[in-house]
Amino acid sequence: MLRKKSGIIIIGNEIISGKTLDKNSNFLCKRLTEIGIDVDEVCVIKDIEKKIIEKVRFFSSKYDFVFTTGGIGPTHDDITSNSVAKAMNLKLVLNPEAKKRLEKHYNDDVLTNARLKMAYLPETASLIDNPVSIAPGFQIKNVYVFPGVPKILQIMFEGFFEKIANGKKIYQKNLTTTLSEGIIGDYIESVQKMFLELEIGSYPYFKKNSFGVSLVIKGDKKTKVDQATKKIFNYLKLANGNPRLF
Amino acid sequence: MLRKKSGIIIIGNEIISGKTLDKNSNFLCKRLTEIGIDVDEVCVIKDIEKKIIEKVRFFSSKYDFVFTTGGIGPTHDDITSNSVAKAMNLKLVLNPEAKKRLEKHYNDDVLTNARLKMAYLPETASLIDNPVSIAPGFQIKNVYVFPGVPKILQIMFEGFFEKIANGKKIYQKNLTTTLSEGIIGDYIESVQKMFLELEIGSYPYFKKNSFGVSLVIKGDKKTKVDQATKKIFNYLKLANGNPRLF
Repeated sequence: MLRKKSGIIIIGNEIISGKTLDKNSNFLCKRLTEIGIDVDEVCVIKDIEKKIIEKVRFFSSKYDFVFTTGGIGPTHDDITSNSVAKAMNLKLVLNPEAKKRLEKHYNDDVLTNARLKMAYLPETASLIDNPVSIAPGFQIKNVYVFPGVPKILQIMFEGFFEKIANGKKIYQKNLTTTLSEGIIGDYIESVQKMFLELEIGSYPYFKKNSFGVSLVIKGDKKTKVDQATKKIFNYLKLANGNPRLF
Repeated sequence: MLRKKSGIIIIGNEIISGKTLDKNSNFLCKRLTEIGIDVDEVCVIKDIEKKIIEKVRFFSSKYDFVFTTGGIGPTHDDITSNSVAKAMNLKLVLNPEAKKRLEKHYNDDVLTNARLKMAYLPETASLIDNPVSIAPGFQIKNVYVFPGVPKILQIMFEGFFEKIANGKKIYQKNLTTTLSEGIIGDYIESVQKMFLELEIGSYPYFKKNSFGVSLVIKGDKKTKVDQATKKIFNYLKLANGNPRLF
């Protein structure tokens, strides 16, 4: 079975101007990889309708799953819901269930126009529950729309991912060594050539008083991952590279 | 004068699998915005030749500047230099100056084949100095190729950005308020409509014992930024929103 593919669209001027460090794509990449869904591309774009429409359409036609984050809050620069509606050729309408949830949530406060804006969703959208600040995310076909606040996104995604977690599990082993990439590079390349179905990644690390390389061996088949890992481990041991397995 | 536009390509399986949190795009977005170069899009892609070629060609035709990070180290999964060469229809050749620098740097160690790989660059590439680990980045036309290790990228970029820093300065004011987005949203939208040439961003924050909104007002013209900021400040003061200016 081929693994399902996904694309992630991070929407927000605050990200692309460098004001805010995006942690949502890292969270989504990690969780999707863990549940066996491949992330093929992440893009970060501005809160510009034309841009959002373009990307949502392109990713939706290309991937099994598209995830967007950001731009579904109450302010004027939150234009994701409207842009996604346009991308999918749908109208933006007041969603009765979303409105009901917001009314209940703000019953001791004011349901301002700005807040009510969060209940306007593309027609035929399915809601994605938001247990923190109530205003829901939503799904249209293969597009899943999440908010940008990391802790809210994370809770919403966890409550939701099981529905889509039918991908294939990836096996992974991690190794570290105190030898440098320049020394072990040729050997690692030879192992990669022996195991073309695996993905062998090499990542140098620099600590205060030491440095070395962290190696990641990944693949669909556990036996192949174990074989390649063992080969590299034995080589590093012989080369006095102090290999450690994780 | 129109501001120059740029696109950023973050290359690396370790990023897109979620293993590593990408901080390079945030650094580049911040610095480029500060020196007046607009970042239009960031994308994160895998170490796959076809993907890199596609993106480099597309971004190079679309933007004034393209920046890539990652994949120029000594291991088998470092394929950026070769892919960029192919994207620009150039041969990958041993760059004599890069080789000389590496020979000098490794004169008390071994210049392995893996290390020497870092001196293979597209023909006609201009070097971008790397004062830390010596292996240079490079420039081909409007494409600037940097390594993925954040502290090395940052030093290389700082030593280099003045050459390209001929963009237009952006003025920016920051305001905070203890009122929520739902309360101030309608007013902020009305100010945005009054000042269409400005970009007004609204970002909720949650601290341990308080919450509120941080507002960012940006534009090319200082007077307009100041006018809009004053308007919002006065409104927030009247509404008991404890505005603070930064």
